[in-house]
Amino acid sequence: MEETIKAYIAGFLYGDGSIFFQLVRRKDNRLGYEIRASVCFYQHSAHLQILNWLKEKLGVGYIRDRKNGVCDYNIVGYKNVEKVINILEPYVILKREHIEKAKQIINMMKKTKKPTPENFLKIARLVDEFSALNFSKKKTQTSESVREFFESKGFLTPVTTDVTTKSL
Amino acid sequence: MEETIKAYIAGFLYGDGSIFFQLVRRKDNRLGYEIRASVCFYQHSAHLQILNWLKEKLGVGYIRDRKNGVCDYNIVGYKNVEKVINILEPYVILKREHIEKAKQIINMMKKTKKPTPENFLKIARLVDEFSALNFSKKKTQTSESVREFFESKGFLTPVTTDVTTKSL
Repeated sequence: MEETIKAYIAGFLYGDGSIFFQLVRRKDNRLGYEIRASVCFYQHSAHLQILNWLKEKLGVGYIRDRKNGVCDYNIVGYKNVEKVINILEPYVILKREHIEKAKQIINMMKKTKKPTPENFLKIARLVDEFSALNFSKKKTQTSESVREFFESKGFLTPVTTDVTTKSL
Repeated sequence: MEETIKAYIAGFLYGDGSIFFQLVRRKDNRLGYEIRASVCFYQHSAHLQILNWLKEKLGVGYIRDRKNGVCDYNIVGYKNVEKVINILEPYVILKREHIEKAKQIINMMKKTKKPTPENFLKIARLVDEFSALNFSKKKTQTSESVREFFESKGFLTPVTTDVTTKSL
């Protein structure tokens, strides 16, 4: 793909796209949670063909017509997201901190395929930081929810903050 | 400016920017109307510095902080708009028809510095066509308003559609 097309998509991502990470409750998962990486581009349904063009260029992901006048092109999973970041990174000018943080999270996910609860929580805290960069407000699952869940399951020892009080 | 920066801005324009033309009622103007060409980029006020970066790159226009959480960067006037189009045109991939139509309007404006009412109306009709490309809904002044105004002032002879009726 030509450099200027990659740069165009990088500019497009700034306006009509988003990189994000989610902490998703998964009962079938060893730790009960998964970390989901996504890149998403949004358009009015009238411009669906624009998302088709993007998908053709980036080669991964799927398009949904949400029937509410909006369609989106989703690239889900850290391997696909990493692929897209690798294509666009050299051309991203604004919001570069998103790219850096996303790479940090993805690298930690790659290094720890079977994370311990402690490691998972560490990544979950980076996910919180990433959401703060996005000014995301509709987050229901935070690293705090993960920590509480891990403690309730005995994966982590609860942090007792009232030790001092007790000893008084 | 580097090619990839121009391409990035072209992609950015697709998502967070707009090219538009307006028919503006001007009492001090010979024909009572002016055709205003604009390129505008919009951001949340938190990202004002992004508009500063754009303005530095494009070298024309002004930034307004609208105090309602939105700021915009406006490039007004056909000479400035032409300058920006010339920078971005080679890299625009989507909405190319906007660029073609904008160039057509600007070329007509340049050719006819002191347009006759007939010529002005011709350009005003292209402005209507441009607005249709933008799905613009809040237009109050159309080429039809211009035609009615010109007729009311005697700049144009009213088109009499009832000749046939009269001769019956």
